[in-house]
Amino acid sequence: MMKAVLIVLDGLGDRRCRALNGLTPLQAASPSFFDRLAAEGETGIVDVVSPGVPNGSDTGHLALLGYDPHKYYTGRGPFEALGAGLHLDKKDVALRCNFGTVDSGSVLVDRRAGRISSEEAGKLAESVGAMEVEGVKVLFKHTVEHRGVLLLRGDGLSHRVSNVDPHSTGTVVAMPKPLDGSREARFTAEVLTRYLTEARRILETHPVNLRRVEQGLPPANFILTRGAGVKPDLPSFESKYGMRGSVVAGGALYKGVCKAAGLDVALVEGATGTVNTNLDGKAAAVLEHLKRHDFVLLHIKATDTLSHDKKPAEKVMMIKKVSDVLKKMLEELPDGIHLAVTGDHTTPSELGEHRGDPVPLLVWGPQVRGDMVNSFNEVSCSRGGLGRIRGVDVMPILANYAGALELFGE
Amino acid sequence: MMKAVLIVLDGLGDRRCRALNGLTPLQAASPSFFDRLAAEGETGIVDVVSPGVPNGSDTGHLALLGYDPHKYYTGRGPFEALGAGLHLDKKDVALRCNFGTVDSGSVLVDRRAGRISSEEAGKLAESVGAMEVEGVKVLFKHTVEHRGVLLLRGDGLSHRVSNVDPHSTGTVVAMPKPLDGSREARFTAEVLTRYLTEARRILETHPVNLRRVEQGLPPANFILTRGAGVKPDLPSFESKYGMRGSVVAGGALYKGVCKAAGLDVALVEGATGTVNTNLDGKAAAVLEHLKRHDFVLLHIKATDTLSHDKKPAEKVMMIKKVSDVLKKMLEELPDGIHLAVTGDHTTPSELGEHRGDPVPLLVWGPQVRGDMVNSFNEVSCSRGGLGRIRGVDVMPILANYAGALELFGE
Repeated sequence: MMKAVLIVLDGLGDRRCRALNGLTPLQAASPSFFDRLAAEGETGIVDVVSPGVPNGSDTGHLALLGYDPHKYYTGRGPFEALGAGLHLDKKDVALRCNFGTVDSGSVLVDRRAGRISSEEAGKLAESVGAMEVEGVKVLFKHTVEHRGVLLLRGDGLSHRVSNVDPHSTGTVVAMPKPLDGSREARFTAEVLTRYLTEARRILETHPVNLRRVEQGLPPANFILTRGAGVKPDLPSFESKYGMRGSVVAGGALYKGVCKAAGLDVALVEGATGTVNTNLDGKAAAVLEHLKRHDFVLLHIKATDTLSHDKKPAEKVMMIKKVSDVLKKMLEELPDGIHLAVTGDHTTPSELGEHRGDPVPLLVWGPQVRGDMVNSFNEVSCSRGGLGRIRGVDVMPILANYAGALELFGE
Repeated sequence: MMKAVLIVLDGLGDRRCRALNGLTPLQAASPSFFDRLAAEGETGIVDVVSPGVPNGSDTGHLALLGYDPHKYYTGRGPFEALGAGLHLDKKDVALRCNFGTVDSGSVLVDRRAGRISSEEAGKLAESVGAMEVEGVKVLFKHTVEHRGVLLLRGDGLSHRVSNVDPHSTGTVVAMPKPLDGSREARFTAEVLTRYLTEARRILETHPVNLRRVEQGLPPANFILTRGAGVKPDLPSFESKYGMRGSVVAGGALYKGVCKAAGLDVALVEGATGTVNTNLDGKAAAVLEHLKRHDFVLLHIKATDTLSHDKKPAEKVMMIKKVSDVLKKMLEELPDGIHLAVTGDHTTPSELGEHRGDPVPLLVWGPQVRGDMVNSFNEVSCSRGGLGRIRGVDVMPILANYAGALELFGE
């Protein structure tokens, strides 16, 4: 069997940008290494979920690993929890959280509590980290900056509760509501509401927040929950593709999705999921993990962050930077390796939001047939030999080239 | 209604071959007749099962006839049995068999008993051709050379039993095991084990084998079973496409799949499924059967055999030969005919094994729209007007051009 690497540049897909003379960031970057791989390999475009449907990074990564998100996805929470190093039992409900700021009328003032530091948020988290509400254990684990994860453990719970985070300021924060008529959803909404009310009471008078108010900073006085879900019961990556694998990523979400699929999580110093992430360290981790395993998923977040921040020119520079680092990485990779490069969704960098346009894909390696496309971007790849495929098809195509798949029939 | 012919070149899809200066066998062959059909018609690439998934000839032909193998396939055995002319009842379990050679320690020495002749194998088969084990009738039918089919007829049987054929020599042959926890699977494994043990006892002392041992030839002293299955309950080809049809093929498997779909089987002298098959005779049979029916599937095995034997240059010659014979055939075909040419899977001829790469497809005839592709190969067809489709879509497309399909809705 040959080895394979799937490289996901988050939010890679884009649209024509006025600031780039009507080119997409990929077209403007014209990244020499990716263009070379496209010329030597095979290209196509990918509807990560299905044509036109905008998807998140969670559903996007599920699909790229070959798991139909319509079948397996319940919410982002469990992936965040797994990625944050929490153990999840089958019945646990997990939620993604932000520390936010509300005023005395419960109107949301800041979704990130003034982008509070990890240090301050960590202290606040301790004060609300473990409670028991109506027999349910509620655990809050802080991750980075304003972010955290909430875990509900007990009987009679459901993930079918609404988001508290309204995703925009100026509206009154609404406590969780049941999303179906079940007794479990009602009970879970009740438990959550009681926890969030009690947490608010504690946070309002916490010394860290009193000091922040004194300093004119928004206090982190509310836990905004979203993405309630239970751990999806995924058939293992190894059972699907006959390869053991690892993930190299900064963000908890990506680690969490891959962990749910049974991949090992690489520990990389300085892999932060930000623009200043340790790209060289991540490339080194890919090489290291390929010694042990047949497959590595390498995730790079910065392309998406710059798209959300509406910085197409900076996205161009980041794409070039990634292309250069991966060029060096390829020189160290074992012979016979197959690579795929793609995105998990399109984030047009003049809109700053996810959209459902397909993302470009290239597959490269000694067994790849090749096509007539010589550059790697949204437009050129639409004429590639791979055609227009779905996200769930990417891994089977890569695993086939690696010779890892079993015959169906004889 | 117009008539239609589906031409399947087994294992047609391939990859770049070093021995062909980096071309695929189809590219190197540049078969003038197929290239002409591609230029006048429409092309595409086909994921016979789904992207990346390597498939066998059995699942491949089911898919090309429009039957989802995930829904209908149970094993290769029943198709081999039908193709060998056996009648199958609904509850019968059928298995594909080889005469093989094991040593006194039951280690497999030769999977084909020294490619024993049909004559000798036929005599041996008679001695183990019919037994009754625990109320189950066990019938062994010899087909050609070392090959045969085993049929179990009785109550309480299941096809969920493991293969005896280990597909490689040097390992101890393991008797069939149940593949699920059912009483039927356990019972079937037991019946099979008793039959195979008794058959071995008879074969060891059979005069044919005693003579072979004397001559230093491997005795055919063991029946290697695989591909246990029950007859799939297929909706008839005629009910799906409004056309009656025939199959022209050498190998039993292909005849069997088509028979299960309700196609007539043409009898062609010298259609052996080998490199020296009677291609002209098969072309004549297509013409003959098109007088009676609206559809013929023409199967040619040699392209796959040469791929498994890792002979890309010979595959090139065979593709040219088929192209030339079919050119002559077309001159005799009735006006208004529609043709499709494709493969049932990819067998890279430098690997010698099936892979999951898509296969090229061309569709030709007076009603076909056309596209901008002028040659018939894996790379050119990826830019064709048919795009990237699934195996189950091929027949509906062909039947549509033939005007055979009923309106869905009004």
